[in-house]
Amino acid sequence: MHVVVNAAMSADGKLSSRRREQIRISGADDFDRVDRLRAESDAVVVGVGTVLADDPSLTVDETDLLGDDAANGPARVVADSRARTPADARILDDAATTYVLVSEAAPADRIETLSDRGATVITAGETQTDLTEALDALEAADVERLMVEGGGELIYSLFADDLVDELSVFVGPTVIGGRDAPTLADGDGFVEQFPSLRLADVERLDGGVLLRWDATGEQ
Amino acid sequence: MHVVVNAAMSADGKLSSRRREQIRISGADDFDRVDRLRAESDAVVVGVGTVLADDPSLTVDETDLLGDDAANGPARVVADSRARTPADARILDDAATTYVLVSEAAPADRIETLSDRGATVITAGETQTDLTEALDALEAADVERLMVEGGGELIYSLFADDLVDELSVFVGPTVIGGRDAPTLADGDGFVEQFPSLRLADVERLDGGVLLRWDATGEQ
Repeated sequence: MHVVVNAAMSADGKLSSRRREQIRISGADDFDRVDRLRAESDAVVVGVGTVLADDPSLTVDETDLLGDDAANGPARVVADSRARTPADARILDDAATTYVLVSEAAPADRIETLSDRGATVITAGETQTDLTEALDALEAADVERLMVEGGGELIYSLFADDLVDELSVFVGPTVIGGRDAPTLADGDGFVEQFPSLRLADVERLDGGVLLRWDATGEQ
Repeated sequence: MHVVVNAAMSADGKLSSRRREQIRISGADDFDRVDRLRAESDAVVVGVGTVLADDPSLTVDETDLLGDDAANGPARVVADSRARTPADARILDDAATTYVLVSEAAPADRIETLSDRGATVITAGETQTDLTEALDALEAADVERLMVEGGGELIYSLFADDLVDELSVFVGPTVIGGRDAPTLADGDGFVEQFPSLRLADVERLDGGVLLRWDATGEQ
């Protein structure tokens, strides 16, 4: 499986404000790029925090990009250890297949609700979703190219488990600030060994810059 | 006065790990660039958090850069509302002039200690250093070009007070992560109006990229 993390952050590394409201960081060109990246992916994954904060649909906007597969855009995936995805979340609509990656700590009634809403629930890990195991299960379901759209907790966990192949970051022309604002990689953070990246490409876009990094796996 | 913020951050916007230990984010080329930037400045300012965490000397390494003024490198400045700079901090050595920007809440005995160590103490603001007033005082002392070297609390405060003219950020090829790790701009964070930047230059350097932004003042 090839895992591409894609995010837009402010010049100071924030995904949104401390209120977790969506901030317009990029513009139309970056939006189109993200849409194409989604269309090229077999699945798009976000953490449950992003579902709760933004309620994204994660569908491809320009359906022409899907060619003959217009009815079958990329699957949507939520990393959701305790199955907190609301039953009325957009990600559970019938626009595409939806997977919810839960842990054994997820309440049975929540899992049942998600299944009733049409989601395929994958259980991996005791109290936190075991991402290595869950991504293996997705790969067995023919997800070869996985796009990660945040948030910072999921992105950190994927780096911590050495599951990231590429990191595309749009750095936008604004400052958000805030010691409690969500950043590109949150979680506990690394303290001794740090994932190493190789800068693959730099492109000016929408008043900011798109940085494409390859994860080299070294820590 | 012209205020240039300069910092090195990881690809995810962190200045250091949650342990606040210094992480090598950039390399020799960026080090030389920062040294030149210091030499071109009349003063270099950091927040007291940076003094307590890193104990920097903030002197110019390559003294040839100072020309005939080798004995008079840029002044060192600490933004230090409560005068917590330790008496044995490197920034108080006799390598250059040192200013400490305190508030009226700073204990008299701490101010006396700093003065005894040769620092010029500037008092502005009641409980927090009033940066606008303190920078005016520095300008009156012939500081025309001020370089800001962090940390994230000071950088945020300067943006909040609309005192920043330029932001130079080296984005390095690593991920630090951590919801509690210091970022380029911490503080309370902006929530409705966000400072706007204009991307002036992009340069690949040391395996990362140097982004130079002009602060446009719009929020």
